[in-house]
Amino acid sequence: MLDIPIAEFENRASALQKSMRDKNLDACLFNTKTEFQYLSGFRTPFWESPSRPWFLIIPKNGDPIAVIPDIGLELMKKTWVNNIRSWSSPNPMDEGVSLLCDELSSYSRVGMLLGREGQLRMSMLDLQTIIEKAKIEITDCSNIIGELRMVKSENEVKLLDKICSMTDVAFNQLPNRIFRKQSFEEATRLFRILLLESGVDDVPYLVGGLGYGGYEDIISPPDNKRIEDGHLLMFDTGSSFKGYFSDFDRNFGFGEQPPETMKAYELLWHSIEVAISVARPGKKASDIFSAFNSHLKDQHGAVGRYGHGVGLQLTETPSIAFWDNTVLCEGMVLAIEPSLSLSNNRMMVLEENIVIRDGSPQLLTKRAPKSLPLL
Amino acid sequence: MLDIPIAEFENRASALQKSMRDKNLDACLFNTKTEFQYLSGFRTPFWESPSRPWFLIIPKNGDPIAVIPDIGLELMKKTWVNNIRSWSSPNPMDEGVSLLCDELSSYSRVGMLLGREGQLRMSMLDLQTIIEKAKIEITDCSNIIGELRMVKSENEVKLLDKICSMTDVAFNQLPNRIFRKQSFEEATRLFRILLLESGVDDVPYLVGGLGYGGYEDIISPPDNKRIEDGHLLMFDTGSSFKGYFSDFDRNFGFGEQPPETMKAYELLWHSIEVAISVARPGKKASDIFSAFNSHLKDQHGAVGRYGHGVGLQLTETPSIAFWDNTVLCEGMVLAIEPSLSLSNNRMMVLEENIVIRDGSPQLLTKRAPKSLPLL
Repeated sequence: MLDIPIAEFENRASALQKSMRDKNLDACLFNTKTEFQYLSGFRTPFWESPSRPWFLIIPKNGDPIAVIPDIGLELMKKTWVNNIRSWSSPNPMDEGVSLLCDELSSYSRVGMLLGREGQLRMSMLDLQTIIEKAKIEITDCSNIIGELRMVKSENEVKLLDKICSMTDVAFNQLPNRIFRKQSFEEATRLFRILLLESGVDDVPYLVGGLGYGGYEDIISPPDNKRIEDGHLLMFDTGSSFKGYFSDFDRNFGFGEQPPETMKAYELLWHSIEVAISVARPGKKASDIFSAFNSHLKDQHGAVGRYGHGVGLQLTETPSIAFWDNTVLCEGMVLAIEPSLSLSNNRMMVLEENIVIRDGSPQLLTKRAPKSLPLL
Repeated sequence: MLDIPIAEFENRASALQKSMRDKNLDACLFNTKTEFQYLSGFRTPFWESPSRPWFLIIPKNGDPIAVIPDIGLELMKKTWVNNIRSWSSPNPMDEGVSLLCDELSSYSRVGMLLGREGQLRMSMLDLQTIIEKAKIEITDCSNIIGELRMVKSENEVKLLDKICSMTDVAFNQLPNRIFRKQSFEEATRLFRILLLESGVDDVPYLVGGLGYGGYEDIISPPDNKRIEDGHLLMFDTGSSFKGYFSDFDRNFGFGEQPPETMKAYELLWHSIEVAISVARPGKKASDIFSAFNSHLKDQHGAVGRYGHGVGLQLTETPSIAFWDNTVLCEGMVLAIEPSLSLSNNRMMVLEENIVIRDGSPQLLTKRAPKSLPLL
């Protein structure tokens, strides 16, 4: 049932344990979807239900321990985790707290995701109880798991390549299914169906933009506005396959577009060429940012950065930003995403997904056309 | 752009403020998708990206204040929230912390979702900084927002009715699209497409079960096992429309089924009749549980409860469980979900969605057939 060979999970756990010993941590405690899949192989859509907390302990030495609601027992047995304890959940009197205290009480310093981009997917009151009862001190371990996840194995790159290819197929079919007078909502629904027909498992993220000479927003759900001649249309999707995400967009013009729009698109396209020429092992994430910035002349206001990591999450570390000095290395997968602020409060974005390689990066996306496609 | 009239958002905020004054809270601070949509009308798929935190303050008196990343500014302007402060995000040096401290420093007791089913969607280290700098004390406000959200308005019931009807249409089409020798993965993909063709916005939750005489699990993603004569197939979906969820399943037999399977299905079906006859304003959630339990004779082991609330989340309070004494009242929307443990570690589940009304509850789902449909 595992999407990745067992040996790789063993390697991940070992690498994490090595960092834990370096940082003087006795164990790490995770309770989020991404870390469950990354460290145990446990993959389920059931995270959509917030009613039950899930716990995964990686001790400094020894095997992982899953402390989970009984509804997940059968599925967890199919992973490489053999040490599984479960309770009948939901149970407001004791939502896994006693079991977790039992397992944690032999440790003193326990790492959790307390830092940037982290979340706590459990009752904070229960966490306080656990800290007191198990007599543990919690400390941030975002960096050590983040550094591990940032560099993808070839097994992971294969899955990322697959989801990007499927997304490309859907984008290529799109011109056959969208037309003038169609509502933006309907076009979005059809694109979602195209993605599924191309083989993606799910479309957890799909946004778009529609407007004259650019779009005003890139995170809105679609409205019932109709596509008109002269409109610029953009779809941006994070589709997923076995839990791994693509994250890129494509732009389409309906009929002739003003020179500003055509030029903006080409500027974005060329800025990606520049970024690709800079993205090499040993360079920093901030070097890619600088390359974009000098080409686009500091117009990145609306999005706050020019890209990010992509993997089991739609967006993950590093950030393509002036402040992120993460050193690039082989196997990092990035969504590079230059954007431009245009006149009339409009904007344009273009995005590709790449793998850092020894030499030129590998494109996971079929490069967008050099000129804005006109329908 | 709002999915619900502005007056209703004003009412929600007022009701929350009344409870806050009763509980001696100066403000409530929210940072999660559901509360943003419920209180501000802000709806976006962008929550899929964990890189940026979002904050919504409801003060004891006065208007809501949104403290958000600049990428959300245009969309937030379209809601009823007028007091919006934003920062260029991501920014690891100050991820909204200063702005939030500014806004919170005039309060002392601030409510947050610290209790059951809660999550913290931000850096916990940043939260500690905010508590110290703004000199606030945080306290749990899960109950007051939970009680409010639990009772749906007619506008909400309309949206829930719509998504349930769309899901029903897709389930009705399903027998035309699934067949023997098809892989479970492929059948799942086709059902997802059917749901979209029926008009749902998204399918955030879709699981299934496939096996002889029942299924062993109800939270796994589908595998590539092929549908065979004699199999029992179940799909369970939480599809969504304007952010509101359906949550129900349907079972199908491929060819003749053993008497145990046929009887189990009918027992589940009749247990729902019993539950419906009990679900009245003034009764408790635990009364529905008891009704199920006496009919099914305590076989609920695998799922931990016999249902739950449904709304902006796939699962929300109350729980149909022996320990949940929430008093039912008109407008509560419930997924009632009896399950049975069968022989050979197999199980069966049947689910319907209802609205508590003065008198008999209103079914949002077209009641499943009384006998297991055989294909």
